[in-house]
Amino acid sequence: MGRITARTRVTRITVGARTSRRDDLLAVEEPLEIRVGRQPLAVTMRTPGHDIDLAVGFLVSEGVVSSGDQVAGAIHCAGADGENTYNVLDLTLASGIPQPDAAARRSTYVSSSCGVCGKASIEAVHTRTSHPVADADLRVDAETLARFPERLRAGQEIFEKTGGLHAAALFDGRTGEMIVLREDVGRHNAVDKVIGWAAREGLLPLHGLVLQVSGRASFELTQKATMAGIPVLAAVSAPSSLAVEHAKQAGITLVGFMRGDSMVVYAGDERITMPSPPDAAPTAGPVPGHVTAG
Amino acid sequence: MGRITARTRVTRITVGARTSRRDDLLAVEEPLEIRVGRQPLAVTMRTPGHDIDLAVGFLVSEGVVSSGDQVAGAIHCAGADGENTYNVLDLTLASGIPQPDAAARRSTYVSSSCGVCGKASIEAVHTRTSHPVADADLRVDAETLARFPERLRAGQEIFEKTGGLHAAALFDGRTGEMIVLREDVGRHNAVDKVIGWAAREGLLPLHGLVLQVSGRASFELTQKATMAGIPVLAAVSAPSSLAVEHAKQAGITLVGFMRGDSMVVYAGDERITMPSPPDAAPTAGPVPGHVTAG
Repeated sequence: MGRITARTRVTRITVGARTSRRDDLLAVEEPLEIRVGRQPLAVTMRTPGHDIDLAVGFLVSEGVVSSGDQVAGAIHCAGADGENTYNVLDLTLASGIPQPDAAARRSTYVSSSCGVCGKASIEAVHTRTSHPVADADLRVDAETLARFPERLRAGQEIFEKTGGLHAAALFDGRTGEMIVLREDVGRHNAVDKVIGWAAREGLLPLHGLVLQVSGRASFELTQKATMAGIPVLAAVSAPSSLAVEHAKQAGITLVGFMRGDSMVVYAGDERITMPSPPDAAPTAGPVPGHVTAG
Repeated sequence: MGRITARTRVTRITVGARTSRRDDLLAVEEPLEIRVGRQPLAVTMRTPGHDIDLAVGFLVSEGVVSSGDQVAGAIHCAGADGENTYNVLDLTLASGIPQPDAAARRSTYVSSSCGVCGKASIEAVHTRTSHPVADADLRVDAETLARFPERLRAGQEIFEKTGGLHAAALFDGRTGEMIVLREDVGRHNAVDKVIGWAAREGLLPLHGLVLQVSGRASFELTQKATMAGIPVLAAVSAPSSLAVEHAKQAGITLVGFMRGDSMVVYAGDERITMPSPPDAAPTAGPVPGHVTAG
């Protein structure tokens, strides 16, 4: 736990009350340089821990690999000063998997938005997805789904101590079982850690699963869900316009504004089975016929 | 407002109640490609509006320019398909200002974390800062500071409609006056918009001012504050370990966990004047002598 939280001396001020100095716990943020075949690919500011999951998840999100067995090895190596700080991780790809080159990645990133409208980016993502989201048959019970945010929060070990960590978890969409949970100062890192763990377990594409995240849903998260073949992305707070647009085009169910028993479904509501209201006749199918305009 | 919010049809589900379909407003997220002298430098996912402020603030944060007059012009230009989508912005630097090149920027980014410990990154940032944070004389009254989060929230026009936007604002540290407020799907973009506005107004370095942000404080935000010469960074929620470490080294006051009348000061508490508690004798100086261990 030493590197996940850090202790620091703080001054606590309350207007009209005594000022005190005390020790406080912080969520650790440190850079991780991800190398592939000894070539630097990216630097991400992350909370240490599950670094290999993070790096493999990042490669899946970026379309460099599409399964865990395409990564043959990973080793923390020394940085420029020769010391192993555990902040440089070198991945080796399996034979036959093309080496990404950082220059190409940068130009891909630029060109994917060169157009430059959301559509251009979205089309670029579509063409790179090796796990098309299908899984049209998945149905998730709204009552089960509504509990995921509190179960995510309950599963966060570090958040309670620091208030500073995002979380992402995979839940089985049918049974509601939590499969894996990861925390990080960056929500995108927490998602990469979850996807990387699943890739290394040989679980990709992640059909049948719900990715639940703390906070908001941006385009970046729907992109990561698409690359991993996840059919349902659920966020505690609001999604952005591009997240919704991308979810619709990718065939992902996008849920947000989860508050107690209620939620808003922005895309793919056919996957969410809604309970029949007490005052209505039973209906067949996931979307009851008595839907009303709000 | 058309491009800041977008309307979409959603399904609202409440367990045990009627399901309804209705229109909902989303915060718009779209890519902005920032070019300098027609060369692509970066792409950021942002909420449209104040694009020139955003781009100039980004150049200040990256150390490309240190004042607004080092940018001679800015124009929205056509993307790859020849159409002006207002998502490509080309900046022209004043004569004598070296053109950044994207490759160098990338390697700077990589090498700044190559070491790779927080210290290496922090030292790299220090050497690039053209506005050293001094402003040792600034004193901010804790009672005034404690009101900034609610004034930030009250000033957010778009958040109320979408729940999806971060905010950043500059306040005068002595009078408490709000100078400028910007919203964006990305907190770092909201900060760049604020810094870019100030740069274009000829206000850099931003001595005497407090940068108040919604949410958390990461290293990225203390880095931006340093580059703009801002002496006090205040965040509604928790900072990360590297944000605190960097604030201490850069001489920035870092405040977090702002809840009603209380707050936690993580670095530089000498700038925050604390009210004398009602039951104590008056004391001189910003930090009362009756500070107790908590």
